Amino acid sequence: MRWSRYWQDGKDAIGIWLDGDLLRLDALDLPPGLDLLLADGPALAPDLYRHLRRLPGDALLNPQEFSFLPPVPGRKILCAGLNYHSHALETAMPSVDFPNLFIRFSDTLVGHGQALQIPPVSTQLDYEGELAVVIGKAAGPLAPENALDHVAGYTIFNDASVRDFQFRGSQWTLGKNFPATGGCGPALVTADELPRGAHGLFLQTEIDGVLLQDGNTADMIFDVAALVSAVSIVTPLAAGDMIVTGTPAGVGFTRQPPRFLRPGEICTVRIEGLGALINPVAPALRSRAG
Amino acid sequence: MRWSRYWQDGKDAIGIWLDGDLLRLDALDLPPGLDLLLADGPALAPDLYRHLRRLPGDALLNPQEFSFLPPVPGRKILCAGLNYHSHALETAMPSVDFPNLFIRFSDTLVGHGQALQIPPVSTQLDYEGELAVVIGKAAGPLAPENALDHVAGYTIFNDASVRDFQFRGSQWTLGKNFPATGGCGPALVTADELPRGAHGLFLQTEIDGVLLQDGNTADMIFDVAALVSAVSIVTPLAAGDMIVTGTPAGVGFTRQPPRFLRPGEICTVRIEGLGALINPVAPALRSRAG
Repeated sequence: MRWSRYWQDGKDAIGIWLDGDLLRLDALDLPPGLDLLLADGPALAPDLYRHLRRLPGDALLNPQEFSFLPPVPGRKILCAGLNYHSHALETAMPSVDFPNLFIRFSDTLVGHGQALQIPPVSTQLDYEGELAVVIGKAAGPLAPENALDHVAGYTIFNDASVRDFQFRGSQWTLGKNFPATGGCGPALVTADELPRGAHGLFLQTEIDGVLLQDGNTADMIFDVAALVSAVSIVTPLAAGDMIVTGTPAGVGFTRQPPRFLRPGEICTVRIEGLGALINPVAPALRSRAG
Repeated sequence: MRWSRYWQDGKDAIGIWLDGDLLRLDALDLPPGLDLLLADGPALAPDLYRHLRRLPGDALLNPQEFSFLPPVPGRKILCAGLNYHSHALETAMPSVDFPNLFIRFSDTLVGHGQALQIPPVSTQLDYEGELAVVIGKAAGPLAPENALDHVAGYTIFNDASVRDFQFRGSQWTLGKNFPATGGCGPALVTADELPRGAHGLFLQTEIDGVLLQDGNTADMIFDVAALVSAVSIVTPLAAGDMIVTGTPAGVGFTRQPPRFLRPGEICTVRIEGLGALINPVAPALRSRAG
């Protein structure tokens, strides 16, 4: 099962993908809410699909008439750094024996098709294609062997990073928290549609059709179960929280010369089974410190 | 003007301090909400005090009958690391030319009088007495000379840190985000009651009456205006957001031998003009990874 969140007529809503079409969930008499979808999506799916197929044609969403949002609002968003062998190598940063995590605020994210913003104070916005894990059921401390039971599904994430701020101190927080510097979507794909732990999926990032990252989720240092378990030991997780799993080799700042995002370019992250997250890069705004 | 948030009868509410007593704000006919207090507390104060003085005795809150909460719920909580000259020296970490920030989730905080929890997986919970800045009015990018106009006031923060997790990777996130490992309160003191930028205030931390940190906010590397400006350049700020300003020398992990918090101890942070934030340390719970 796949769904997207979208913004239309001043409010956010959920659409369900069916045979390549996106259908308004709120066209149903008794639509389940996001929490129910997160907790029990695959169990609800057969019944939901039966009802959706009977809807009139005006339940079909027209992509020209709405904006995609990230598939969950993202209460807690924890991102793993240096979690692919290939990326850890290219950065030459010290390896770790435990996931190395930072936090993004949810206002840093835009949905599929929405523009990434180069901050007016930066010239170094850098792409990072990643797999994001969405929590389905609240969890206290989880052992790795139970962690996947709490995962609702997966989506695509562009953890784009403002490098000139990320490396100003030891903590990467500032470089990861400018508004509209990350992309997330287009859809949440429930876990039952993918290999266990979303293992072994290709992950590619391209700019204007030029391939820049070509990795596989099998290259993660800490896999999805290990990441969810590690985070759960620290902080209580709830439905809709996201754990973002790190990026493979090929990011812009390690290239010679460095390759940062430029206004007008289109950045695409593809993950096998999850589709493509496509974001244009908006023209830079002027700095206005008031 | 000073207020505290508290929890009573299953809900949170606001009390205003008047001549050493805490009075229920909701005993007024038309009590202002938190956003109004944050935006305009000092302007409201004379009228508010006049009404509060006329309230019957049952508007007086009895500390035995409620629990303190942090004075704001804390939507975005950004904390500066290594921001006191004295603490930067004792850690021997590299100095920075820009604030070095990390994020705490709000569920890591307890109010005045509530217990700090040593995580079941740790033996290294360490105190850090700090000044916290509370934003009063939404802000985009601010120049330092305008930053203090957006500050509602100040409170006390114990940025207690789980050192064995904080230093497992380069990012301090995990060590700062276990539940109930930070303290905040007891009151928000509006900016007009303190020196500009809360400059030059003594800050002391003690355990069971033994003085362990003895600093002064004048020792900050980036002062309040510089911190608020730096954060505002990255992420939009709103009323109730907190910027926590770092700790002076004397924390436990740099001592020989190290001095971590132990169950049953009482940790107190005092800041001149802000009172004392007192938190007992709860007995350790057993680990239960499910």
